[in-house]
This record gives sequence, C-alpha cells and structure tokens, in this order.
Amino acid sequence: MEEIQSPYLLCLGNETELTFAKTAKGILDWRPEKCKGQIGLEGCTVDLGLPDLSIEEAANNGIKTLILGVAPPGGGIPESWYPMLFGALESGLDIASGLHDKLVNVPNLVATAERLNRQLFDVRHPTQSFPVGTGSKRAGKRLLAVGTDCAVGKMYSALAIEKEMKARGINADFAATGQTGIFICGKGVSVDAVVSDFVSGASELLSPENTPDHWDIVEGQGSLFHPSYAAVTLGLIHGSQPDAMVLCHEVGRTAIIGVEDYPLSEFQDCMETYLNAARLTNKNVVFVGACFNTSSLSDEDAKQYLADTENSIGIPCTDPYRYGVVSIVDRIERI
Amino acid sequence: MEEIQSPYLLCLGNETELTFAKTAKGILDWRPEKCKGQIGLEGCTVDLGLPDLSIEEAANNGIKTLILGVAPPGGGIPESWYPMLFGALESGLDIASGLHDKLVNVPNLVATAERLNRQLFDVRHPTQSFPVGTGSKRAGKRLLAVGTDCAVGKMYSALAIEKEMKARGINADFAATGQTGIFICGKGVSVDAVVSDFVSGASELLSPENTPDHWDIVEGQGSLFHPSYAAVTLGLIHGSQPDAMVLCHEVGRTAIIGVEDYPLSEFQDCMETYLNAARLTNKNVVFVGACFNTSSLSDEDAKQYLADTENSIGIPCTDPYRYGVVSIVDRIERI
Repeated sequence: MEEIQSPYLLCLGNETELTFAKTAKGILDWRPEKCKGQIGLEGCTVDLGLPDLSIEEAANNGIKTLILGVAPPGGGIPESWYPMLFGALESGLDIASGLHDKLVNVPNLVATAERLNRQLFDVRHPTQSFPVGTGSKRAGKRLLAVGTDCAVGKMYSALAIEKEMKARGINADFAATGQTGIFICGKGVSVDAVVSDFVSGASELLSPENTPDHWDIVEGQGSLFHPSYAAVTLGLIHGSQPDAMVLCHEVGRTAIIGVEDYPLSEFQDCMETYLNAARLTNKNVVFVGACFNTSSLSDEDAKQYLADTENSIGIPCTDPYRYGVVSIVDRIERI
Repeated sequence: MEEIQSPYLLCLGNETELTFAKTAKGILDWRPEKCKGQIGLEGCTVDLGLPDLSIEEAANNGIKTLILGVAPPGGGIPESWYPMLFGALESGLDIASGLHDKLVNVPNLVATAERLNRQLFDVRHPTQSFPVGTGSKRAGKRLLAVGTDCAVGKMYSALAIEKEMKARGINADFAATGQTGIFICGKGVSVDAVVSDFVSGASELLSPENTPDHWDIVEGQGSLFHPSYAAVTLGLIHGSQPDAMVLCHEVGRTAIIGVEDYPLSEFQDCMETYLNAARLTNKNVVFVGACFNTSSLSDEDAKQYLADTENSIGIPCTDPYRYGVVSIVDRIERI
C-alpha cells in the first residue's frame, strides 16, 4: 500500500452540486491540513472555500497530488479533463482518482507518468495482490464500524472515534476501506473491489500487527444484512478480527437500501449476528457503542431516542455528528 | 456463461501421479459420456483408461475441446505444452484450462484463437462482468451443499444428489462454482475468483429463474467456519437463496484445514449458523440431509456413526460415495 502524498489539490470537475463533490468535501472535513487548494473546470460552481489554484500554482505551492474527488455522470473521466491530468504530471504532481473509470486507461497517461516518475492511484481498484487470510491472532487492538444497513455513517463514526481517541493521546489510526477513506488516510484498500477469496487476507493486511496499545479504527463496508454486499462485510470482519465493534444506524430507515422487501432487523438481533460472525476470529469481541444518524429528529427527540435506545441495548448510544463520541471512547478505555 | 463444447480430450500433462490429475479423473467419473480420449505429454504415466489420441486423431474423432485438467507444479502452463495448444486450435479444437496461469497469457494464443474462430476458457478466471445481487426471490428451487470446513466433499455430494434426482425423473441440474465442476457441467462460475462486491450477484446468475419444479443443485465453496474463505461462502449462500441445504463433513477432521487453532464446531451449531445466514434471502430454508466422508471408518463403524449422527441431528445422514443419497432425495421429495 503506497501512500498518497499530501498536500492535495482537490479537483471539483464540472460539478454544480455539492453532493457530487462529497468525496472532496469529506477529505476537507476530516483532513483540512492536507487540503491546500481546489480546482474547478468548465461550468463548476461548487466552492469548498479553498484557494482556487491552477495546476502550475499548485505545484509552486508545494502541492504533491491532484485528487479527483467528484462523481461525473457514469463514473467516467471526461476527455475535457485530459489537459489537466497531463499538466499535473508535467508539473510534478501525482494523481489519485476515486472514479469508476481508471486513470491507467487514459491513453498515454501511464507512459507519461512513468517518464516523469510520477504515481497514478486508482483507489477504487486495488493493484496489489493479496494473500489469503490466515486467521492468526496478531498484536494490537482493532475497532470495526458495522451497520444495520449500508450507508448509515460507518466512515463518519470511525473517523469521529479516531479523532476523539487521538485527542486523549490514545495510539489510534483510522484504517480506510473505501475511496473517500483512502484519500483521507492517504492509504487503504477498497475491500469491495478485492477478489472474494482474498477479502479477509486484504483486511488482515489493512490492520497489521502493531504494538499492544495501538488501535486500528477500521472503516466498515456494506452490512451483513444487505443481500448484495454481506460477503464484503464478512471478509472484513474476519480479517480485521475486531476487539470492539460499533453499530451504526440511520434513524427512520426501516428497509435495506437498494433492494426490495428487506426490512431492517432489531438492534439486538443485529448485534448478535455481528458478534457471532466476529467470534470466529476473535472470541472476546464486544460492542462498545452505537452511532445514530438522528438528522430526521429534533434535538429533543434525538436525545430521548438515544437515551431510550441506550437503555434498551445496554451500550453507549450517540449521534457522532451532533453529540460526539465521548461516551463510546470512555467505554473503549475501560476494556 | 458460454458453454464448453464436448466431447473432451483430457490432457494429463506430464503427470506421474493420479492425485495431480484429479480434475480430469473427476470429469471422467461424473461425465464419462463427455470424455472421448486422453493425451499425455513427455513422462506422463497416468492412465485414465481412455483411448490415447493425438490432437489430430481427436479432431478426426469429433472431439471439440482440449481440457487441461491437471495441476503442474506452480500452476503454470509449461512451454513444452505450447505446440499441443497451438496444434489444438489449428485442428479446430477449443481449449479449456483449470490452471492458475491463464491461457490468454500464452504468447500469440489469443490471436491464433481469434484467427481460427476458436474459444479459450480459463475457468478459474471469470471474464464476464457480474451485476450486484438483487436479493429478489426468483422461481425454481435450489439446493446448496455447505461444509463444516473446506474440502469435505461438497462437489461430490451435490453431483450424487443431482444424479439420484435425475434418475427419479426430477427436473434437476448441477450448478458449478469451481473448476472441476465447470468442466463437468460445461459451464459455471468460479465464485471465489469474483470480486467480493459481485459474488452474490454472480451466484444469482448461476442459478437463475427457472420453472417452479426445477432444482439447481449448487456446488458449495469454502465454509462459513473458515477464516480465509467465509466471505465467498456467504455470498454464494445469499445469491443462491437455497430452499434446501446439505451439510458436508469429513469424519475424523477436528480442525479447520490450512489455518492454526480453529477447532471444528458441533454439527448443531454449524447448521444453526448456516440457517441464520441463509434465512436473509430465503426464510423457508431447511436442511435436508448431511453427507459424510467416512473413509477412515470400517463399513460397520461407518453405519453406526451415520445412524448415531442421524439420531442426534434429525436429518438423513449418509456417505454418498459408499451408500448413495437415496435417503436425502427422499427427504427432498417430501418438501
């Protein structure tokens, strides 16, 4: 896992809506110190509040990598971006892309990067080969965010927990398993793009042996309750061998996203299913908290909901965005 | 899923031990009508009892495909085989390989195949792209073989069940998920080589909608209890949506193969874990039997073991190799 060098120049493409630049926004939210500029192309009206820099200005300001953190329609790399891409390499920048289409398929881009000794990162598409999982216990501790469904705030929760742990001086590092996380972290593996035989092995590599006091805070992927993606989730669970798990949920979600007729399970059943799966590689795994997206509730209702749920499931419950994760990290410090 | 055309010419390579030609042996055991000849190369002493045919003789006898069903050291395709490969294409045969190294990486082989309008099948390496799983219920019925561990006779059990069902006039077809199974069936998907995001989708494609009376007898892969491969198994379970499962076990195996310190679970716990996983996509799933490899026991001890186990777990228990699968198919006919 080669590391993406910062500072970053965030490319906002031709976007006119912030929602399609949410990857770039996520990087800026969680690693403002890595983000030194933004660059928009024709028609772009999104503004993250960073200095607008040309490629040349970015290079002159010590920026190391151009980040493609937007989602153009279809996931492709528009030809109109090509001059910017070649310009970046010529100016001494690496390029990292979270798009579906690969940088390495842009005609001549690989040859140009090789000639100039620059790196291309297609973070959705792992290029390294992974070993099969060993299931062997390794030193260090690991926390994994898991969900009642996909897209319930697992990355946000993991990053919030890492931040709070670091603030307390705990030896902790976020471990990224998806594109936005990889940009934030500078490294990681898109585990859902790994061949199924190697997904637990890749997850072992992602959170390798470490000092006994060290915590990897592993970004979750998918959900054991999603019929499309549960295989990814199980491989990640078995490979990361979590000591602690955090359950994530979006308040108001009643059915699994993107499929028909899959109602969400009760929290207790969810937790039991995750614990049973995780116990295969770590008998001592426990839940240390639950993170809820309560944005559909008023402040008063959210607090009541969290108090009621905490009472019912017996672990600290919070909305990490609204109320932080102090109670969860308190619990982590006690195990 | 393009189909591999039979009759087959089974290449035995340079093998001197039957165990390294077990793929070829498996094809012959289960589909003798597809196997019309064998070809050995320098040093080969393995004999499956088929006519020894040169490539030219095979072509003249109507053989359609050369099958590489052996495992040379390292999984590579020896250069000494190249003349045979090009000769096969020139003579009008397709080639299908179960080796780790790909036919498509043999210099000029793809170009030669294209020129001659012949097919190359690397059955370990799916080339089609798969959709993500939908989780939607589809018509037809499905049976899936699952294991207390890997390599416990799941393919053999599934094939034995298909054979017994067909003998009774039941509308049933084996669905292959690994290399030997694909040669036997002529088609299938090596699900462990599918990117994890798509493994349940590939498994849906493998056992598509069918008439209500039709049974797909799906070859299992891996085991939910193997820390290296459980992700493959879970995706296959969710995608194949089994109505019926058969538990497979090797008598005497006490620990998971290939890893350290993973004792096997009790049968009842195994079955509960598989049922819980399978219920996500099919609430009505049941076990219809268990298949044991009792080769380590005498006939008398094996019968006693099967009777005791059947008494304890409450489903038909048999050794498919020694005693057939009549009792399991009886149970299937009653659901």
